[in-house]
Amino acid sequence: MIDLRSDTVTKPTAAMKQGMIDAEVGDDVYKEDPTINKLEELAAEKLGKEAALFVTSGTQGNQIAVLTHCVSGNEVLLEKDSHIFYYEGGAISAFAGVQTRTIPSVNGAMNPLEIESAIRGQDIHEPETGLICIENTHNRAGGSVVPKENMKGIYQVASKHHVPVHLDGARLFNAAVASNCSIKNFTQYTTSVQICLSKGLGAPVGSIIAGDHKFITKARKWRKRLGGGLRQAGVLAAPGIIALTQMVERLAIDHENASLLASGIKNVSGLEVVNTVDTNIVLVDVSKKGLNSKEYLERLKENGVLAVPFGPSLIRFTTHYDVSKEQVQKALATLNTIH
Amino acid sequence: MIDLRSDTVTKPTAAMKQGMIDAEVGDDVYKEDPTINKLEELAAEKLGKEAALFVTSGTQGNQIAVLTHCVSGNEVLLEKDSHIFYYEGGAISAFAGVQTRTIPSVNGAMNPLEIESAIRGQDIHEPETGLICIENTHNRAGGSVVPKENMKGIYQVASKHHVPVHLDGARLFNAAVASNCSIKNFTQYTTSVQICLSKGLGAPVGSIIAGDHKFITKARKWRKRLGGGLRQAGVLAAPGIIALTQMVERLAIDHENASLLASGIKNVSGLEVVNTVDTNIVLVDVSKKGLNSKEYLERLKENGVLAVPFGPSLIRFTTHYDVSKEQVQKALATLNTIH
Amino acid sequence: MIDLRSDTVTKPTAAMKQGMIDAEVGDDVYKEDPTINKLEELAAEKLGKEAALFVTSGTQGNQIAVLTHCVSGNEVLLEKDSHIFYYEGGAISAFAGVQTRTIPSVNGAMNPLEIESAIRGQDIHEPETGLICIENTHNRAGGSVVPKENMKGIYQVASKHHVPVHLDGARLFNAAVASNCSIKNFTQYTTSVQICLSKGLGAPVGSIIAGDHKFITKARKWRKRLGGGLRQAGVLAAPGIIALTQMVERLAIDHENASLLASGIKNVSGLEVVNTVDTNIVLVDVSKKGLNSKEYLERLKENGVLAVPFGPSLIRFTTHYDVSKEQVQKALATLNTIH
Amino acid sequence: MIDLRSDTVTKPTAAMKQGMIDAEVGDDVYKEDPTINKLEELAAEKLGKEAALFVTSGTQGNQIAVLTHCVSGNEVLLEKDSHIFYYEGGAISAFAGVQTRTIPSVNGAMNPLEIESAIRGQDIHEPETGLICIENTHNRAGGSVVPKENMKGIYQVASKHHVPVHLDGARLFNAAVASNCSIKNFTQYTTSVQICLSKGLGAPVGSIIAGDHKFITKARKWRKRLGGGLRQAGVLAAPGIIALTQMVERLAIDHENASLLASGIKNVSGLEVVNTVDTNIVLVDVSKKGLNSKEYLERLKENGVLAVPFGPSLIRFTTHYDVSKEQVQKALATLNTIH
Repeated sequence: MIDLRSDTVTKPTAAMKQGMIDAEVGDDVYKEDPTINKLEELAAEKLGKEAALFVTSGTQGNQIAVLTHCVSGNEVLLEKDSHIFYYEGGAISAFAGVQTRTIPSVNGAMNPLEIESAIRGQDIHEPETGLICIENTHNRAGGSVVPKENMKGIYQVASKHHVPVHLDGARLFNAAVASNCSIKNFTQYTTSVQICLSKGLGAPVGSIIAGDHKFITKARKWRKRLGGGLRQAGVLAAPGIIALTQMVERLAIDHENASLLASGIKNVSGLEVVNTVDTNIVLVDVSKKGLNSKEYLERLKENGVLAVPFGPSLIRFTTHYDVSKEQVQKALATLNTIH
Repeated sequence: MIDLRSDTVTKPTAAMKQGMIDAEVGDDVYKEDPTINKLEELAAEKLGKEAALFVTSGTQGNQIAVLTHCVSGNEVLLEKDSHIFYYEGGAISAFAGVQTRTIPSVNGAMNPLEIESAIRGQDIHEPETGLICIENTHNRAGGSVVPKENMKGIYQVASKHHVPVHLDGARLFNAAVASNCSIKNFTQYTTSVQICLSKGLGAPVGSIIAGDHKFITKARKWRKRLGGGLRQAGVLAAPGIIALTQMVERLAIDHENASLLASGIKNVSGLEVVNTVDTNIVLVDVSKKGLNSKEYLERLKENGVLAVPFGPSLIRFTTHYDVSKEQVQKALATLNTIH
Repeated sequence: MIDLRSDTVTKPTAAMKQGMIDAEVGDDVYKEDPTINKLEELAAEKLGKEAALFVTSGTQGNQIAVLTHCVSGNEVLLEKDSHIFYYEGGAISAFAGVQTRTIPSVNGAMNPLEIESAIRGQDIHEPETGLICIENTHNRAGGSVVPKENMKGIYQVASKHHVPVHLDGARLFNAAVASNCSIKNFTQYTTSVQICLSKGLGAPVGSIIAGDHKFITKARKWRKRLGGGLRQAGVLAAPGIIALTQMVERLAIDHENASLLASGIKNVSGLEVVNTVDTNIVLVDVSKKGLNSKEYLERLKENGVLAVPFGPSLIRFTTHYDVSKEQVQKALATLNTIH
Repeated sequence: MIDLRSDTVTKPTAAMKQGMIDAEVGDDVYKEDPTINKLEELAAEKLGKEAALFVTSGTQGNQIAVLTHCVSGNEVLLEKDSHIFYYEGGAISAFAGVQTRTIPSVNGAMNPLEIESAIRGQDIHEPETGLICIENTHNRAGGSVVPKENMKGIYQVASKHHVPVHLDGARLFNAAVASNCSIKNFTQYTTSVQICLSKGLGAPVGSIIAGDHKFITKARKWRKRLGGGLRQAGVLAAPGIIALTQMVERLAIDHENASLLASGIKNVSGLEVVNTVDTNIVLVDVSKKGLNSKEYLERLKENGVLAVPFGPSLIRFTTHYDVSKEQVQKALATLNTIH
């Protein structure tokens, strides 16, 4: 099977496994796990923030950010197809009691003026705008990079109105590698940020949130309430350190493989690549094949290739560490044979 | 002052005042207020539902409906500019823990196909769709009537997916009078409905929600939690009965007055009527006057006319029981003098 | 029927009815109802607070206080049998997301030292203590007066730990009249207070919450979210003003009647008065009659007297404006005949 | 340092580390991690339930149970000093919107009759009783075993009133070993149960919840919302399997060590053991030493022994896998020297 469903399926590398064994551990609820402490310091530095916190998933990191920034009765502005809105089970309303207000975008980039006009005033009828969320790269837009200039524009509007900005950077390293720059170029325009260790970077479990000391202190308590306060979490932090230090630059290979896949698909009759393929995701419309996405995916699977549905006639391919260039070429060959 | 800000400013009629005095009352928490009981029976019958419940406001009625239909973690589909989403302080997320997903519309009428595509599936990442809300007439669309055919289409989609439909009918009687039909023509396509006694119908305080017996039983408990369980509420029910029985047909006068106002404004240079003026609301763009809405409203006020802002350069005029045709003509004369 | 179920069943007086008619009204959402404004000023002054707000019920007032003082994840300390904990449907947890921690009492008076030891510290495992609630008079303790010295002790502990104190003073005027002092003697030891206009004071609908300006501003918005923002609410404020100005001192009569009833019951074999009868409530244990409370109440009802169950073998009698001394004597006579 | 603070500080064994490396892993969000699947099957079988789910902590497991069993506005009955009430940050009210009602106990065993009398009826003023929680062993009662007969009594009352029972069995294996019986003897009297892999059993991270299929299906979605949906979670499941299969019986050693410690402390003047020492916890009152718990713990630490405060003059010692009999004897010698 060539598994192009998601970069979440990557398995820990040998170095990561060895790291788990060698990790010095302690009870992280007491802040005594040295490997966790090292990871959090390292992550804070890389993200250009005062402090960082290990969390068990991107969803948990995003939820904690909302719980920490907002109070019940606030409204959160976020992109129409963003992960927090689309794929987190409505949790920010269930747990933080905030109302979601979605903003359209072009490839994940929301217009700062549209955001400004959506920020609420002092009216007794209206919720207070408590947070603006950006997603970069943007998953449902096909892994598109939200330009740092766009993030700057949003951050300026937010600052003017004293509203914090949270970045769902589950795949922020993909954006940085694709933009050939440091991730700080993006994180400078945020109040808090979440990045995943477990997608393209290959760690088995975990994400990081970062912000100032006050944010992290408060976030740590919300993490405890969510059940994310772990004990000997160093066994997860060790692969996380490897993810941050050894796995970032190689994301370029995933991007090349996605590009190769997209180029090939353009030559397959009946398939249409609908995204810009900035990073490691290729979105393909299969409607001209006379099949819906589920039917098409069935046939793909029968032929040894896995992808995921992204709409009635849309499917998503994601390249990652566990898929080689040869496998991408083989997948392309398979795509050519499916009718 | 000619007060065209809202139909909420109407004062109780002499008959209503007399009704308050004459009302036989009791403790409604014990269900012993005969006037409340009479109002609820009357309202249920008029709305074509099994049962009805008096609530203190439209907002409270809508909140109770959401709390009754949904559980925390659900998603609610509702129109992009609807009152529940725009003007209720984010309360449905704060209290019911539901996520709001907005649907665009043409004059308040949402496309049933867009609604269907927004209904969530069984995916573990996604909230369950718990409720669809319609608003009729639609306030921010300028009092537009959502056609009953549109409501039927939405109701069919909802029923197919086993999702209830709640109608925010704060001004539903305006829709019925403008459509020259019974309100049951609209309410037949709903699971629950809220109507206001205190807007065009002139009662001082109160709204009604209606649905089946099970809905109302559950709703009664949520009303208690919200603090809407009243004691000798018959003093409010008496004017409510008058509102329902004597004040509906005269809404046609408000509509004529709004029409008169709109026609007149079309001849005022620099002012532009932007809504369809189906009922008692006229939305006017003042940008060509070189003023923003606040500035324009200041000048209007100095000249004895009150309206409300509805956007940076948009203002809303609302006709109602306490504004006569003569006053509308006088307001028009004033509009002609403002530069 | 002699209705001794609750002082909530009192019907508006003729003066109140006339007040409703004569009331000058306006739209209170715009803060333009002069009668509401007058009531709120009057109430603030009587309660010794900067500002006051009309709400539709005691439950609503209490809920707003909790929503205004606390944030989700806080813990509220409150008496083990208090109304907020016992009779408000769990609403403070449902809406404000706070955890309830109950404190035992002697006749409603909690030990300040027990409260102090229940206030939480900085531990990451523990909720922050967000509010302390007192109830005076205490309903389930049988209308007992919580002494102002006790309130002072609690307030001092609370202030030391920077925790606000909310007083559920639904029947605070009974406490003041029974203590022969101004209610300010009690409210001086509170951050916020709720009093009912609709119980012993006889108004048909409504309560008041009071506190400083900041509290009331924030409370007003939570009231709107709960659906308590009314329109021509002056029709309810007018009886409220009469309640505050003309109905307080006569509570002494209710207390005398309760005392008369209790004295009489002490001579009825098989009945035992179990509370201190400080004000207008008499709690009676009927177990020696060989009946449970429901059965006993049935027999009472058959003989023209109404009361409510307060436990498996406990019933509550409440005296009020609509029960005369003669009726109390007649009720006593009835009690003597029931076996 | 001899670390007697908690059994949460245990470090993974060599076998567990090897297990992490050897584990076959997959993406558990897709249910494709074979080691997680194996752990969940194993746990379900051992707990006598249809299905089980891996969660990241005991707190997360408990929170998910409450979210799955209850809806907002419910009331949960739980022991006065239970972990869910005392140490989870008020999360069940913040997230599930439920009100907590605490029941006193003797060493963690609540009286079924007291529970029955606390179950709410149908009254519109009252929350519905949504769940009863038991904790076994009971941490704050000093690791006491709640007898299975007591659990049976509670379960019978609960079943009669159609209320589910959740068992916080973070240290349930200690109860089973101390009672010389299978844990099924306890879990048979529960609707759902949570057990920790990371306390006495020594796994680095993780807990299990178990119940019927419907419960686990719903729980899985709440876990996702809380951010507990992990990717290659097999690296944590592997030590978990070792914990369940190889680490249970040896808890008897911890119990012997605790017993040894308690016996020795009884001979130390000024120290008083206040719990029954059923399992691996010893609670000691230090007040006769003229020190508060913090001061005493400081001195202990200076002499190489760690414990935790459990009240103003109470401290807790916990024995576990990483503390040998010799270390316990050394700790005792130290206790004898502290004045």
